[in-house]
Amino acid sequence: MSQQRHGSTPGSGSGNVPAFPDLPEATIARLPEYLRALHNLGEGGSDTISSEGLAAAAGVNSAKLRKDLSHLGSYGTRGVGYDVALLIEQIEYVLGLDQRRAVCLVGVGNLGHALAGYDGFASRGFKIVALLDADEAKVGEVIHGLAVRHIDELAQVAVEESIAIGVIATPAGAAQAVADELVAAGVTSILNFAPCVLSVPANVDVRKVDLAIELQILSFHEHRKATLTALPGGRSATGAGNQEAVGS
Amino acid sequence: MSQQRHGSTPGSGSGNVPAFPDLPEATIARLPEYLRALHNLGEGGSDTISSEGLAAAAGVNSAKLRKDLSHLGSYGTRGVGYDVALLIEQIEYVLGLDQRRAVCLVGVGNLGHALAGYDGFASRGFKIVALLDADEAKVGEVIHGLAVRHIDELAQVAVEESIAIGVIATPAGAAQAVADELVAAGVTSILNFAPCVLSVPANVDVRKVDLAIELQILSFHEHRKATLTALPGGRSATGAGNQEAVGS
Repeated sequence: MSQQRHGSTPGSGSGNVPAFPDLPEATIARLPEYLRALHNLGEGGSDTISSEGLAAAAGVNSAKLRKDLSHLGSYGTRGVGYDVALLIEQIEYVLGLDQRRAVCLVGVGNLGHALAGYDGFASRGFKIVALLDADEAKVGEVIHGLAVRHIDELAQVAVEESIAIGVIATPAGAAQAVADELVAAGVTSILNFAPCVLSVPANVDVRKVDLAIELQILSFHEHRKATLTALPGGRSATGAGNQEAVGS
Repeated sequence: MSQQRHGSTPGSGSGNVPAFPDLPEATIARLPEYLRALHNLGEGGSDTISSEGLAAAAGVNSAKLRKDLSHLGSYGTRGVGYDVALLIEQIEYVLGLDQRRAVCLVGVGNLGHALAGYDGFASRGFKIVALLDADEAKVGEVIHGLAVRHIDELAQVAVEESIAIGVIATPAGAAQAVADELVAAGVTSILNFAPCVLSVPANVDVRKVDLAIELQILSFHEHRKATLTALPGGRSATGAGNQEAVGS
């Protein structure tokens, strides 16, 4: 079966693809990987790509990739593979990347500074439109062209700039209050870098990035490998190669 | 059943707990959350905690928490709950946090700078012992007390400092070469912030943090919620509250 082109509005797709697919969380997390691989392939001059080739470029197995893409109604063409440009369009549609989303960043300490200057946002559909901090000494500081505003302006900024996603890079103790303010201002997606659990209403999505937790997970695997090596007839190299993507 | 105290060496636990538990990846990813919640409870003066209380503090449901902890041989005591200090000890043992692990950080751009100064590492069992960069202009720069060394010294540093975990914060184009060098130097755990897929041997564990991917996943949910709202009889508030932990 060949690929189906999504219409420009939800609901105009073909009969066997729902208006908006109900995707497994793990599939959602892999779509950005496929998208990045497809952009690389497209820039390299490829018009089509086999499922095996795309799977290798994205670091997953090809059966999983085919299953993921079938959720989007994309099956490729036998003997040809997937149309790169069309698949990019389909994935960008599902991820809502056909519109640029405005991001505000709260907390411009070390990590906030790094995030404000991170090139990967702009090139992949996001624009940081506001920086906020509670520290009066930081207000007015210009970081990558944006002046830091006081956290008290958050509600006003969220409305003025149509903020879609709030990024919290404050210390843990301040994060819940910031989340409450974001939610009160109508923001329904939060990316939380503060090492704490946020309490939010059911209609708000939170993704969490905790760098120390990532290290602790690696520590577990180091410990596991050391234990295997220490056992009689140690199996030091038999652990399956683990390449876990965040959020997968 | 009451909690079993792990012996100080693998294999000395009670009969019904394997020497080293074979944990589901999702359980491994939640253990650091439990640990953080337990430390907070301990600092707050709690000696014991119910599964419901701990689950709430860690942001998971209590049935899942009990199942996770049963993998460690921890069942708490009926009517009393879990012994906070003992459970901390058990989780730290499994995560291999009873020894401090040496971390080297490769790439000291914006993000690398932020990571080098991140307090969360030291307080949770990790110590950044080396900073490396390919840029001669950065070599010798002192960041949070550590002088940046040239990437050519990586192999030597890895051995000298007994590096357990390598953190890659380079641009995507440089990441694979750095990973190859880390692996050649005997490092078997890598935390990759570069937006690319690394190819590593089967005995090497890689965790990946890609900030733009996190935003794209949130973008999907924004798109989904907007679509639900736009449907006849829009169900804007029915999406289950999604609080996805990275790596879960």
